[in-house]
Amino acid sequence: MFNIPTMTNQFSHIIADKINQKTKPLGALGLLEQCAMQLVTVFSQNVAEEHAFKAFTPSISKPTLLVFAGDHGVAAQGVSIAPSDVTSQMVANFVSGGAAINVFCQQLGWQLEVVDCGTLHPVTAASVHNCRLGSITKPLNTEMAMSTSQVQQGFNNAKQLIQQLYLNGCNTVAFGEMGIGNTTSAAAIMAAMLKLPAQQCVGKGTGVSDDIIKRKITVVEQALALHKSHLADPITLLAALGGFEIVHITGAMLSAAEKGMVVVVDGFICSAAAMVAIAINPEVKEYLIFAHCSNEQGHQLMLEALNVKPLLQLDLRLGEGTGAALSLPLLQAAVGFYNQMASFADAGVEQVVS
Amino acid sequence: MFNIPTMTNQFSHIIADKINQKTKPLGALGLLEQCAMQLVTVFSQNVAEEHAFKAFTPSISKPTLLVFAGDHGVAAQGVSIAPSDVTSQMVANFVSGGAAINVFCQQLGWQLEVVDCGTLHPVTAASVHNCRLGSITKPLNTEMAMSTSQVQQGFNNAKQLIQQLYLNGCNTVAFGEMGIGNTTSAAAIMAAMLKLPAQQCVGKGTGVSDDIIKRKITVVEQALALHKSHLADPITLLAALGGFEIVHITGAMLSAAEKGMVVVVDGFICSAAAMVAIAINPEVKEYLIFAHCSNEQGHQLMLEALNVKPLLQLDLRLGEGTGAALSLPLLQAAVGFYNQMASFADAGVEQVVS
Repeated sequence: MFNIPTMTNQFSHIIADKINQKTKPLGALGLLEQCAMQLVTVFSQNVAEEHAFKAFTPSISKPTLLVFAGDHGVAAQGVSIAPSDVTSQMVANFVSGGAAINVFCQQLGWQLEVVDCGTLHPVTAASVHNCRLGSITKPLNTEMAMSTSQVQQGFNNAKQLIQQLYLNGCNTVAFGEMGIGNTTSAAAIMAAMLKLPAQQCVGKGTGVSDDIIKRKITVVEQALALHKSHLADPITLLAALGGFEIVHITGAMLSAAEKGMVVVVDGFICSAAAMVAIAINPEVKEYLIFAHCSNEQGHQLMLEALNVKPLLQLDLRLGEGTGAALSLPLLQAAVGFYNQMASFADAGVEQVVS
Repeated sequence: MFNIPTMTNQFSHIIADKINQKTKPLGALGLLEQCAMQLVTVFSQNVAEEHAFKAFTPSISKPTLLVFAGDHGVAAQGVSIAPSDVTSQMVANFVSGGAAINVFCQQLGWQLEVVDCGTLHPVTAASVHNCRLGSITKPLNTEMAMSTSQVQQGFNNAKQLIQQLYLNGCNTVAFGEMGIGNTTSAAAIMAAMLKLPAQQCVGKGTGVSDDIIKRKITVVEQALALHKSHLADPITLLAALGGFEIVHITGAMLSAAEKGMVVVVDGFICSAAAMVAIAINPEVKEYLIFAHCSNEQGHQLMLEALNVKPLLQLDLRLGEGTGAALSLPLLQAAVGFYNQMASFADAGVEQVVS
């Protein structure tokens, strides 16, 4: 369904040598060195020859952050402090530039795009991409959240959005989400994918009380029991437990990897989408950079299960792609030191290795 | 010696209210919210009246990073893999723009200044500030590293440098360091300040072997025993155990706080200087933002002892101020969301608090 080229690592030794020859102790740039290795590897996939690679300067081009919004039928089961109306209100806030993600994107150089994947009260603004799969999903604890054809439609929409970015010269994307109730959906996906009990996957979301947490756990347990036969296949799993925005994010990750883009993964919801994307096509993982560990219980467990170390830990639990947005300067620093730092030989500094 | 105004918190409730009214779940921006609170508090110290505060827009102005370089006599005791010559070679690298700190400062918008506090081979370049206290300290395990008058001279130099930045309109500073052997000096300062055994304070520095670590521990133990009577007073402690660059950083932190500047604290060496600065005048602490937890063993313990939570954990162990440099976008994001995000009322978003 997604034709992701297997990552070629033919220049790994050249990249590692170049990093190790920079005027710094071996490994002293920590996570930025691994980040540089991954970014340069992804960006150089179309470079075939060693001499061409040596003349090649990797760079982050037109970084774009797509915020996908969708409403969740499960929100009416009392799993969130906010009513579903707030999803559309926040979409309007994105359009008028007042949300956290607007501020961070503007500051840090991300192009921001807003995508309505299916919200209760569609915001009519020319700048909002219309990818509506409905107005709200069905409650995942009583029926399938959506049909598999809705999942396919979401993947198709995502592919078209990514194609457009690709044609515009973008090589780095991040995805954010807005959807009241979506931590319940993501927790259910996590529990299903990692075969963990609901209570290890359910967290406070936007800041709910202990009573609401208990209800969230029950709802997730009901959903897992109800959809038991649908959880082995990632497409039916998404249809059973997903959200319109989560489906689009999953499809966008896979489509971006098809196009050879770096995908910066935000928090709990996006990491759940990433797990599903990897289940659909494991090749996608090489294209993913995990931006941060959020304050949502479960996210750390998810990152451990994925065996990845995120760049930031800022106790964020906002969503919208804010953690991914904030990581961009670190990605740029990684590419920057790779391209611009002097080597020991260049700088006439003695190289001493213990 | 340093006349740091006690921080006024008269607008704390207004700042907290404003943060809590932003269109996001309460506390959802995690560490950035605490960072915003501290930055706005420091920047508004000269605002006297509430109506003036409400019209006041905080901003980071002319952020400047000073890299202080100094050589350490203790390097000849076999505590580092690199010879002292490398300190001056790296200063030359700073001058020609090839070091990590050059790349990060240029990318992120720091003005970078290089200060020679006393290196073996002075780099003669107009751009290097001459604050030389000598060419190298004495080995701290056999004698006082320097005299107390050298410490005073270092403080005076630092005060003049900060005064110049202040006159140029800078309100945010960070300090970096270069000095072969300086993790040994910082470990000795840490052990003395926190009354911890040397082996909890000594780490791998630039990447030394286990044998060298053992020697470092012995050297620190010798220094602590030799200078026992000098460790209660922070000035004689600096003279006994410090480095020329560490003295300047300590003085620069205190001078910057005198001027009401935000001080972004880098890694292990700078945090050791911060501990001494706090011992000299505890008021300085309110002006310090801890940028990152480095990969140097001991730094995490130091941060815990200081009861602070740093913004970044990237496993850096490079020095030069690189961790502080990389934190600037987060500080800007904190001020940015405070100034620019819409409130619930502005955006017409329902505010729901559990």
